[in-house]
Amino acid sequence: MRIDVLSLFPDMFAPMTQSVIGKALERDLLDFNVVDFRQYSHDKHMHVDDTPYGGGAGMLLKPEPIFEAMDELNANHPGQKRVILLDPAGKQFNQAAARELAHEAHLVFICGHYEGYDERIRTLVTDEYSLGDFVLTGGELGAMMMTDAIARLLPGVLGNDESAHTDSFENGLLEYPQYTRPATYRGMDVPEVLQNGNHQLINQWRLKESLRRTYLRRPDLLAALDLTSEEHKLLNEVIAEIKNE
Amino acid sequence: MRIDVLSLFPDMFAPMTQSVIGKALERDLLDFNVVDFRQYSHDKHMHVDDTPYGGGAGMLLKPEPIFEAMDELNANHPGQKRVILLDPAGKQFNQAAARELAHEAHLVFICGHYEGYDERIRTLVTDEYSLGDFVLTGGELGAMMMTDAIARLLPGVLGNDESAHTDSFENGLLEYPQYTRPATYRGMDVPEVLQNGNHQLINQWRLKESLRRTYLRRPDLLAALDLTSEEHKLLNEVIAEIKNE
Repeated sequence: MRIDVLSLFPDMFAPMTQSVIGKALERDLLDFNVVDFRQYSHDKHMHVDDTPYGGGAGMLLKPEPIFEAMDELNANHPGQKRVILLDPAGKQFNQAAARELAHEAHLVFICGHYEGYDERIRTLVTDEYSLGDFVLTGGELGAMMMTDAIARLLPGVLGNDESAHTDSFENGLLEYPQYTRPATYRGMDVPEVLQNGNHQLINQWRLKESLRRTYLRRPDLLAALDLTSEEHKLLNEVIAEIKNE
Repeated sequence: MRIDVLSLFPDMFAPMTQSVIGKALERDLLDFNVVDFRQYSHDKHMHVDDTPYGGGAGMLLKPEPIFEAMDELNANHPGQKRVILLDPAGKQFNQAAARELAHEAHLVFICGHYEGYDERIRTLVTDEYSLGDFVLTGGELGAMMMTDAIARLLPGVLGNDESAHTDSFENGLLEYPQYTRPATYRGMDVPEVLQNGNHQLINQWRLKESLRRTYLRRPDLLAALDLTSEEHKLLNEVIAEIKNE
């Protein structure tokens, strides 16, 4: 997969050289490039923003630098692309979107900054995504977050192929509680069932605790699932236990 | 405000030296520190993770390094803190949460990594937040995103005090389309009303277009608002226009 990011802050992308994504770049599983679109400014002071028509606070990104950066990208890489804008008005990004985008050959992120951007920039865009109902100073962190969520799903990126499939959301439930050594720490014990090595009981405990956590914290996720008869039975046990607490 | 982040990847936090957050640090409006909790490892190989009890793929963060990093932080900064864990099971982070956290004196983010963390680490935490229903390789990008959303609300951080108040969500509506020069670009014109300088008409156009965008893309936001009679009138116009399209 190739990812290009159009940004005024190329130094912000240092996190992409670290950890899992850094390793994916080293192993050529991902090609990640940042285009500083300030280089497409028409003016000797390298301005890329201007005041809004109709008045108001703040500065807006001008259309020309971003259109011309896209022209050059399209000339050098003529294939089909998904051009993504992070905007509060976009669709909510989620794991299904990450899985869908992980099948694409070429993604482009346009990172807004300052107070906003000229509306005509949206005509370049194939997908608008929002990361949630909050406001950021720019699109860079969002582009990195989407890159992280997408790239970890590419074949070979995670060390252990099993890992991406045992995550929260991959089976529609929140993850069960996990424990590692020591068995007792500051008076808190690892549950007995996890220490006794009976895999059938361990799997049942994990499924039940996933159901419990999802029931308590994200009943909306449960409502969207088609539970098996075992899951129904365990969920009923959970509900009875909560009522007796 | 002081923010401490417990992370195994201190180099990932380079974005915090850039742009708006970088300027807030320079002007001492924010004190941002990263604690590499690997230094609290008990073992000569500096391990901070171990295999899960009960089996399964991947490695979990051990409790000791994070508990001891928190002990030292509490000893050096004894005041009240909000200790935040980014987890898919947490509350959805949003602008209201950003506003609330912007009033705190000291925030601590614990960044998970690898497949997860020992459940006992949650006992250190006052707030669990999720950024959405997707899975990341670690909590670092989320901690930076929350820091960005919170820090831009601190007094003096944004250059123009008006800016944070004209954002999407601050009045419950999505932002209206914005335009800057040139008036015509690649055949696309800036709307006439924004060029004619009548402020009453401009304000009405902007409110109507905010309502239109919110109606089309985020009707859930509209439903949560108590509209004024002018907003009702404009929204009815929008709905009639959409029906006639």
